[in-house]
Amino acid sequence: MRPPGPTIRTIPDGDDRERLVCGDCGFVVYENPKVIVGAICTWDDRYLLVKRAIEPRLGFWTMPVGYMELGETTEQGAAREVWEEARSRVEIDGLLSIYSIPEISQVHMIYRARMLTPDHAAGAESLDVALLRWDEIPWDHLAYPNVRWSLEYEREMKGQTGFAPRGRPER
Amino acid sequence: MRPPGPTIRTIPDGDDRERLVCGDCGFVVYENPKVIVGAICTWDDRYLLVKRAIEPRLGFWTMPVGYMELGETTEQGAAREVWEEARSRVEIDGLLSIYSIPEISQVHMIYRARMLTPDHAAGAESLDVALLRWDEIPWDHLAYPNVRWSLEYEREMKGQTGFAPRGRPER
Ligand SMILES: [Zn+2]
Ligand SMILES: [Zn+2]
Repeated sequence: MRPPGPTIRTIPDGDDRERLVCGDCGFVVYENPKVIVGAICTWDDRYLLVKRAIEPRLGFWTMPVGYMELGETTEQGAAREVWEEARSRVEIDGLLSIYSIPEISQVHMIYRARMLTPDHAAGAESLDVALLRWDEIPWDHLAYPNVRWSLEYEREMKGQTGFAPRGRPER
Repeated sequence: MRPPGPTIRTIPDGDDRERLVCGDCGFVVYENPKVIVGAICTWDDRYLLVKRAIEPRLGFWTMPVGYMELGETTEQGAAREVWEEARSRVEIDGLLSIYSIPEISQVHMIYRARMLTPDHAAGAESLDVALLRWDEIPWDHLAYPNVRWSLEYEREMKGQTGFAPRGRPER
């Protein structure tokens, strides 16, 4: 027996790509790439990181980051994620990095943000949160390579404005 | 009678936002913001524009632009749209603009691109295509304000690299 919901992969009439279609009700799912927004947040020379409370990479550290939602700008989404995961209010201050990950159809947009106060606390999706000096960052326990890339670019661009966002390093 | 497919707006178990759910098969639609990619393409001092063959804004001019698809980077998506709509091969060369349109949950990412040859032709979604000098651009018949904004920023940044992408002008 087929599971319920859109499970049939076919090219709908008038389309030019395969989509998922429901065999029961005919609903067509238009899957699109997803936008992930986040921010490297700083207070003086310290960086705001959260320890993930959910899979994947549970227990590893990252900048606050998550799926962009409907009805917000990318900057609003990044600030919302910072609030949800690290309970910090920030001012978004430039786009640091854009990482396309075509293998999983994601576009990550990581901003630079200035904390308005040093206050922070773990949100529901975080086991822990910390405001760390550069040499206190748990480099061997970061959730993803792009956490390191974005931290390094933030540090490199400190005090500068008007720079181009950086992508994945060439491999 | 309810139409088929996901039409019931409710908060699924374990979620914190309303989603569209199908009353027949229970399928939950996770709607996310969509990414639109495009490019301002130039050959010497001329700009590549297409006349839209589809609604909305049928008959108006725009840079090649459209929905990012699964399995591609933003740059690949922009180059694909240029090929599909204007039959031109380009090299993507920096991100010009990012426009969040929260009212319709879209993120537009417009690149700067260099045409590899002056060849071009109307694709299936274009009524016409043209390689125009600045003063030949049909300013009163552009499809959207961001066509003008991106053209102006391309011109302003001519010969420069490493600049920050620009958003919507402040209003
Ligand atoms: Zn169904
Ligand atoms: Zn259904």
